[in-house]
Amino acid sequence: MSAKSVIAIAHPNIALIKYWGNLDDEWTIPANGSISMTLGGVFTQVCMTAAENLEHDQLTMDGQVASEAAQTRLRQFMDHVRHLSGKTFFCRVESTSNFPRGSGIASSAAAFAALALAAAKLYDLPTHPIELSRLARLGSGSACRSIYGGFVEWLAGRDHQSSYAIPIASPEHWDLVDCVAVVSTEHKAVSSREGHRLAKTSPLQRCRVQSADQRLEQCRQAILQRDFEQLADVVEWDSNLMHSVMMTSQPPLFYWRGETLVIMEEIRQWRNRGTPVCYTIDAGPNVHILTLSNYAEQVKEKLSQVAGVREVIMAKAGEGAYLLEP
Amino acid sequence: MSAKSVIAIAHPNIALIKYWGNLDDEWTIPANGSISMTLGGVFTQVCMTAAENLEHDQLTMDGQVASEAAQTRLRQFMDHVRHLSGKTFFCRVESTSNFPRGSGIASSAAAFAALALAAAKLYDLPTHPIELSRLARLGSGSACRSIYGGFVEWLAGRDHQSSYAIPIASPEHWDLVDCVAVVSTEHKAVSSREGHRLAKTSPLQRCRVQSADQRLEQCRQAILQRDFEQLADVVEWDSNLMHSVMMTSQPPLFYWRGETLVIMEEIRQWRNRGTPVCYTIDAGPNVHILTLSNYAEQVKEKLSQVAGVREVIMAKAGEGAYLLEP
Repeated sequence: MSAKSVIAIAHPNIALIKYWGNLDDEWTIPANGSISMTLGGVFTQVCMTAAENLEHDQLTMDGQVASEAAQTRLRQFMDHVRHLSGKTFFCRVESTSNFPRGSGIASSAAAFAALALAAAKLYDLPTHPIELSRLARLGSGSACRSIYGGFVEWLAGRDHQSSYAIPIASPEHWDLVDCVAVVSTEHKAVSSREGHRLAKTSPLQRCRVQSADQRLEQCRQAILQRDFEQLADVVEWDSNLMHSVMMTSQPPLFYWRGETLVIMEEIRQWRNRGTPVCYTIDAGPNVHILTLSNYAEQVKEKLSQVAGVREVIMAKAGEGAYLLEP
Repeated sequence: MSAKSVIAIAHPNIALIKYWGNLDDEWTIPANGSISMTLGGVFTQVCMTAAENLEHDQLTMDGQVASEAAQTRLRQFMDHVRHLSGKTFFCRVESTSNFPRGSGIASSAAAFAALALAAAKLYDLPTHPIELSRLARLGSGSACRSIYGGFVEWLAGRDHQSSYAIPIASPEHWDLVDCVAVVSTEHKAVSSREGHRLAKTSPLQRCRVQSADQRLEQCRQAILQRDFEQLADVVEWDSNLMHSVMMTSQPPLFYWRGETLVIMEEIRQWRNRGTPVCYTIDAGPNVHILTLSNYAEQVKEKLSQVAGVREVIMAKAGEGAYLLEP
């Protein structure tokens, strides 16, 4: 074993082209490719310690013993790690995040990206980013994107080997800012994991998936050319497509609230009047508003005045996962 | 000419399985079949008078000279009538409705059903309901359903000859009540006509259309068996599917408002707690809530207490179009 204890840090990401539904639920092979921006400033740190005397892995989150569901999810991930590495020891994991849960920033992506890096180091697995990306995917699909900083594409692939993320552009490439308008911090009734399984019960999922390549191409080009208008069109379109699938699943998943819809309408109007803004919404009621750094303060100010907005969290493009060297 | 002046009355209808998008815009051949309930109590009356001296058709609505757009739409319809009948005279049309515009009850269905009947009488065209249904369809797609009372299915067909409505069950068959929760009476930004043309720009329309037969069957069976639970499932699902297509068109059409979403959520909760209610929403923000007559007063009362609801209009299943004999 190369180290008794390692600390890894990773950032969450916001999907610009959404991941929703799997080709293979067990291996988290997504139905379609996706693109995201890794978020700076907000992060999750995991400290992973080898513990030869333990009989199973142990997880604390923000200083508290984690829920049974979270423990199980960690253990399933670590079983993959042990299987791949041939090493059998268990570990103690302390995870801490500097952003609130329920804020609309998905915590599992940052957590499993950091876990993949820490585990690769502790269990002597290959640390090439593509290898880390595949490993992180086994913990949480979107975690495969948080291995990299800046703008990232998850190539859907068709099996474990071919499904991983690659970088599109560095954090410095474009000064986009994600302003998260928090309208509720309630725990979501249906988890994303369960939602992914329901995707195929919507008659619309097939059409969403079949048309994804065109949107991936438009989003990739918009990023490479720093074309905000192109980006805004495709990002809102893709978010609406995902929520369409959610709302037409059986049972239907409604993540939007009244306030969510009001903000979406506001954003479309601000953009029509010339402000570079667009929205994207994950599996929750909070709204991610993308803008350019020059407009970020003004957008934050305007968002704060919209009825129902409790808080606005700001994040620029951030770095990929890294180890905190002792 | 068999009469100098005729008066026809028809009722609006609420679609339970929605019509959205055409196979052929010019002939209003719909992309999929639809099912509706004709609404009693609310109606449109048209008085059509042959006027040999006129040089074009003239329309008044509720006593006012109609807008240029409405005049054009009437004239296009009457051109069909003249073409089919071989008669060349123009007419004066006075249309009056007993329900407010912008209430969420589509007025064009009732108007063109009444116009079709009046025109058939005045221009000596066949008055068999299927012939009337085809003719009404040329004025406004959903008008072909308002020829009949009670529960009605529009068979999509593939051309003018094969696209018409037929009755499923009489108004007395089932004591459903439509409670329209009015949250806004603003004129809609994008007309249904324009919306139908945009349907094909959504990547989801193909999947919605391809899966429609299954929903038509479920809805038909639910009506025939008076199975409210089955009806509720398929009616909400189908409404969500149509709005998914709307919201993912290019440009996107958002008809829902914050209040709309809040009411939808309330309705799902009331049903979960045992009240037989379900919602369906047309191309506007107002919500049609279906319930059984025993629950109608209670539902109206509860709806009136929801924030943003200005008025609740109630309608049972109504009659088909008929002539007012002098």
